[in-house]
Parts: sequence; structure tokens; C-alpha cells
Amino acid sequence: MTAPGSTHASMAELNRSRIIQLLHHNGICSRAHIARQLGLTPAAITKITAQLIDMGVVSETGNLDGIKKRRSIGLQLNESKYRVIGVKFARTLVRIGVFDLGGNLESEQLLPPVAIGSIRNTLDDVKRRIDVILDADGSIVAIGMAVPGPYLRDEGRIAVVTSMVEWRDVNFIDEFAGAFRVPAFIEQDARAGALAQSLFGGGANPRSLGYYLIGEGVGLGLIDDGGLVNGNLGAATEIGHVSIDIHGRPCECGNVGCLENYCSAVSLHRAIIDGGLVDGAEGMTHTAACTALFRRAEDGDETALALVREFARYIGYGCVTIINAYNPAQIILGDIMAQAGPMLLDEVKAVVERHALSALRDTTAITISDLPVDATLSGAAAVAAAQFLEHPTEFVGQPDD
Amino acid sequence: MTAPGSTHASMAELNRSRIIQLLHHNGICSRAHIARQLGLTPAAITKITAQLIDMGVVSETGNLDGIKKRRSIGLQLNESKYRVIGVKFARTLVRIGVFDLGGNLESEQLLPPVAIGSIRNTLDDVKRRIDVILDADGSIVAIGMAVPGPYLRDEGRIAVVTSMVEWRDVNFIDEFAGAFRVPAFIEQDARAGALAQSLFGGGANPRSLGYYLIGEGVGLGLIDDGGLVNGNLGAATEIGHVSIDIHGRPCECGNVGCLENYCSAVSLHRAIIDGGLVDGAEGMTHTAACTALFRRAEDGDETALALVREFARYIGYGCVTIINAYNPAQIILGDIMAQAGPMLLDEVKAVVERHALSALRDTTAITISDLPVDATLSGAAAVAAAQFLEHPTEFVGQPDD
Repeated sequence: MTAPGSTHASMAELNRSRIIQLLHHNGICSRAHIARQLGLTPAAITKITAQLIDMGVVSETGNLDGIKKRRSIGLQLNESKYRVIGVKFARTLVRIGVFDLGGNLESEQLLPPVAIGSIRNTLDDVKRRIDVILDADGSIVAIGMAVPGPYLRDEGRIAVVTSMVEWRDVNFIDEFAGAFRVPAFIEQDARAGALAQSLFGGGANPRSLGYYLIGEGVGLGLIDDGGLVNGNLGAATEIGHVSIDIHGRPCECGNVGCLENYCSAVSLHRAIIDGGLVDGAEGMTHTAACTALFRRAEDGDETALALVREFARYIGYGCVTIINAYNPAQIILGDIMAQAGPMLLDEVKAVVERHALSALRDTTAITISDLPVDATLSGAAAVAAAQFLEHPTEFVGQPDD
Repeated sequence: MTAPGSTHASMAELNRSRIIQLLHHNGICSRAHIARQLGLTPAAITKITAQLIDMGVVSETGNLDGIKKRRSIGLQLNESKYRVIGVKFARTLVRIGVFDLGGNLESEQLLPPVAIGSIRNTLDDVKRRIDVILDADGSIVAIGMAVPGPYLRDEGRIAVVTSMVEWRDVNFIDEFAGAFRVPAFIEQDARAGALAQSLFGGGANPRSLGYYLIGEGVGLGLIDDGGLVNGNLGAATEIGHVSIDIHGRPCECGNVGCLENYCSAVSLHRAIIDGGLVDGAEGMTHTAACTALFRRAEDGDETALALVREFARYIGYGCVTIINAYNPAQIILGDIMAQAGPMLLDEVKAVVERHALSALRDTTAITISDLPVDATLSGAAAVAAAQFLEHPTEFVGQPDD
């Protein structure tokens, strides 16, 4: 039952957080603008911004628009003063990045592919690499990690991982939450991607969006009314295991006709091998095999194009489900399959045009992620950045009152 | 970007609302208990409860547990001091009820069945009846209305109504929002039902639940983290138009294989007529025909029982989708089809047991609504009551400061 703002202390933190988030989303603002937007008194604004300047989180920028009045001095978030580490865990891929609070990637490492039996080595490798990064950079305040779903947030465990079940034995909270000098926060990959789109993306509406992850797995992160749809165990929006065909193929999760089995990069890789469409596909990573197919389709290979379109239709059925089930203002496609680009997007939109509720589809933008890096890796950073933006004093200490 | 508690005035209203909601959910509480639960200072509690007592919303109950100390005096919400009207619109059914703030039904009217061509008469009849009720009872503070979905909340219009499209021409906001001496609030039926379960139901977790409406239509209202999942246009959670079979029958909405077509009371009524299972079913209402079938099945008619089980399996597939897509702590089945009782619930649970993600299904309770009245009618009242509980001074005036 505890709502934000219940005590004086948390009220102050809430207002600090709201100012930081406003500056994060809007860029440079005057104190007067902030006061109007947030309904705070000039006195409150003066006090809180002074605290944030003391904390080094916010700085003054000089006069706005050349107007030399006290009230026209701009304030901006010092996005580069603090950094976060993002870690993306996929089935066979692990990637580590260092980001500033604005989501700008400063450095990146790709680990050797994860194989069955080598997960323990990978986890130890991740820890060593993070410790090295932390030792070299005192400005890092938090770590965010994105893992395949369905992820049971309170338990720290992945419930089902099709095609690579060993990940189920990892407890991410036990492994990582307290393992470093800064806290680590763990979230399901597509939900992390949705946070990245909301915090770092250029989309029209950061308060209502779905990030539709179509990679080694298929997942969804859904922001409704400004917050993630969580579910009781933090495992909501598992679109990959929503059935699109009750007479369809059995899935490892127990259901039949799960969307994931029709349009993941793992399934496409299998279809590429079965069809003999890419030479040497058996020995390739999922990403490499799919990318090779997309190139052939772009170069005019009709068989390759037909296969991309077939998978795109299933991705489109997933969009129809997302629109009717969650009614977001925008759906952003990301990860390996989204690399197919316009030839995929056009087919997805054609399916949505035919099948989604007309009143909803006409108000739902469908795009491919335009984040400069992998949305899940950005998302891992966003998980950490969101914690900082919401509870700044937990990371940089309480200001003098 | 406006969060609650941004100004002094709304902060006071937020705290009043939180106290009222705590008393609503927990019954009688001492001031000390409220202070602990909400993290408010004793001085703040004393001031706010004095205001609420002045407003007549809360009253003192004498000593708790026979302990004669000032701090042990109980406070309770005067749920019977204010009343709300609830109106349920279904395809052919309209029902009006008068409720207290605790969701207790005080009187009820069922209007004559709505027929194609008579919707205008029905709307006028509803207005006349509400005016009569309002004239006779000055304690009524608001009206809530529940309408079939997908309902576009900002437009006031229903986007699709299978089997009775004329409802699409009604603009509920224009018709009703300002038509009476008290405000009227309109919400989609299943979402209203979810509010009723959360506010008035006896369920374990009012902050995470799905109300699965299986009546003339099929819908879902989903409460996640204490609030309704809304979507961009207020049309989220349209489970009735989520496809369970991409090779399935076309639906009037444009999609194929929509859940609604497999398990609504309208579909069951059609199957009853086609199978010749209930004498005179052609001339019956959907409710009457389905109820007659349920009786036959209970009396041991194998053909009737097989049909109930077939529909229950589809309802079960819907539950699997709800669990994997929203991960609620509980799913509550309600409306016409839920009247089939245990024979339906057992089959639903068997499908869930086979197909839902095991980590999620084991933590999801599935029950039939135990509200004493139609959950959608209760829900209409809940829509009005929720407005009162959240913004009490908008209905009974600002307290002296």
C-alpha cells in the first residue's frame, strides 16, 4: 500500500527524481519551466536544484536564448558525470558495455560464445571483466543485467529457456546482486529493451510502448502509463509463449503453438539449414546465419526472400496480439530478426493492417529500433540508469538539507 | 509527467485517499495503525482524520479490544453514508443498481431486453430511471457505467461489438457524462469487473488480478501493481480478440481465430440451437439458454456435459494466454459462462495445468467470482466508488484547512 511521497524524506527524493527525469527527457530547462511542468513552488525548485548542483548531478548552462535574466539560466543533467555498466545475456551471446546516464555507449566487449557446459566459465569471466572495469573507472554507480525470460524477478531464476536449458540453473541474484562494489540490478531482456526505448529512444511516446524482441528468443517489454507491466512474479508479457495456434507444434514450455517457435532467430537458423540456403550455416552463430540470409534476400534471391517474408508474417501475428492485448502507442521491433529491415517491416505491417482491431492499429506506430546499439544491451544499462534516476541519493549520498 | 503529490493540495488529497482506501480494505483501524501503515506522522494523521470526520466520510467507533486508551479508538469508513449508481450495458441486457461505497447492492432494476433498432429507446429509458433514482436519494455522489469492449475511453465509443454492431453508434460520453446532477464515469465491462474484484472482492491479492469476463462477449480487466493496465486509448487487455488459432474462423473484428468466437455465451447459444439440446432455445435469451444447458449437464446429460467441457477447454486456453501474457496472482472467472460452476472450472484448470508456464501457473489462483451480484454491475459501481475513494473532495467538497 505504500505510495511514493508518504514521508518528507521520500517526498524530497521524489521531487529530485522528477526534476532529473524531466531534464533527462527534455534536455536543458529553466527553473521556471521545471516549476510549471511539475507544479512546484519557486522556493522548492530553488532549494532542490541547489542540492542537485551540489551533488554534481545537475549543472547550470548560462543564459537561454540570449536573454540575460536570472530566470532564463538553463539547467542540464550531467549525463556524462556518472556511468553504468550494462550486461546482455542471451542464449549463446554475452556482451558488456559501459554507458553514460544518457545511454551513450563508451566501450563494449563481446565474450566468446557460450556453449553447453561452459556457463560457469562465462559467469566467472563476466565477474572478472566487470571488476577490471570498476577498478579503472570510479564514476560507475550501478550495473544492469538483461537476461532471457520468463525471468522470475524475486527468485533470480529464468523459468524456461528454449534451446539452451542450462541457463535455468543459474541464480542471477545469488551470482551478481552483491558481487561488486556497486549494486547490480537484473531484468528480463525485452523489459530492459523497453526501458531503453523509453529512457534513451527517440520515440514519440515514452509512456506507452512495447519493445518486441525477436532474437534468439522472442519476448516483449511493455510500458503502460509510464511504467513496466510487471505481473505478480515480474514475468508478465511473455509474448513468446503466447500461443498463436492451439493446434500447433508443442513447445518446451508445455504450451502448443508458441509464437517463439515460429519466428525466432533460432527457428530461422534451423530453416536455413533445412533449406540449404546459406553455405556452411551449420557452423555459424544464429546471428551470422540469419544475417547471411538477409543479405541474400536483399540481393534478390527469391527463396531467401520468401523465407524472410514467411517469418515476418508470424512476427506480424505477434504484433496483432500485442496491439489487441496491450494497446501500446508504438511497437518497436528489435534484435537479430529486426536486422532484416524494410522487407520484414512491410510484411509485418501488412498482417497488422489485415487483422488488428482497426481503431487500435491506426493509432499504433510500428518501427524498427533506431537505438545505435543492441536494444537489450542498452536496456541493461537502462535498468541501472532508471534506478539512478529514481533514487539518486542511494547512489551519490544524501544532500545537506 | 505529473505524478501524484506534486503540490501541497494534491498531497493532502493523496493522503486522505490513502487513509480512506486503507479503511476500505482493512475495516476498522486505530490512528496508530494507520500512521504505521502509511508512514505518516501522528500530527498528520490527527489533522487528516479530523478533516475526514468533519466531511462525514469517516467516524470513530469507540475503543478497540476494550483497551481504554486514546490511541486505541477505532476509525471506520462510513460506507453507507454515500451511494453510487452502477449501470451494466451488455449486448442485449441493461441493468441498473444502487450500491453503497462498500459495494453492497441496495436496489436493482433489469430493463427490457435490448433489440436491434431499440437502442435509442433503451438509452432514454436509462436516463429517465437514473433521474428518478437521483431525485429520491440525495446521498448518491456518482454514477459508473460498464460497457462492452474494446471501448475507446477518450472517444466514448465502442470499437467493435460482435453480434450487435448498433452499439458502435452510441457515444457514451456525449450521452451520459454530463447528463445528471452527479458525474458519470464509463469503463469497459471487464475492466470494471476487475475494479470490483479489487475493491469489493474477497480475493487474496487486490493488487494483482485478472477478471475474465465470459458472457455475451469475452473480455479481460487486468490489475497489475494495484492499477488497471490501460493501453494508449484505454483499450488494452482485449483478450476476446486475441487469436488462439491463426488458421481459425474469421471474426467480425478483422482477426481470425479470436477467443471470443470459441467460448462466449452467444457462441454457446448457437451451439445449443444447432445441436437441438434445449427445447425452445431459439426464443430464449443467451443467459436462459446457457443456464438451461448447464442444468441438463448437472443432471447427467452426457451430450450437454460434453458441450460445456468443450467450451471450458477454450476458456482454459484463454487462461493460459492470460497467465503467460500478464502473470496475475489470480484469475477470476465471471458472467454467464461462469455459472456452469465446478464442471467448467475443473476443465479450465486441467488445460492450464497442461499448457501454462509451470512457474507461473503454480502461483496463479483460478476461481469463479464470489461477488454476490453480477461482477460487471458491481464493477460499474466500483468505477464510481474508485473515483470517490481517490478524489473524495471532488464529491463532498474541500475540508477546512
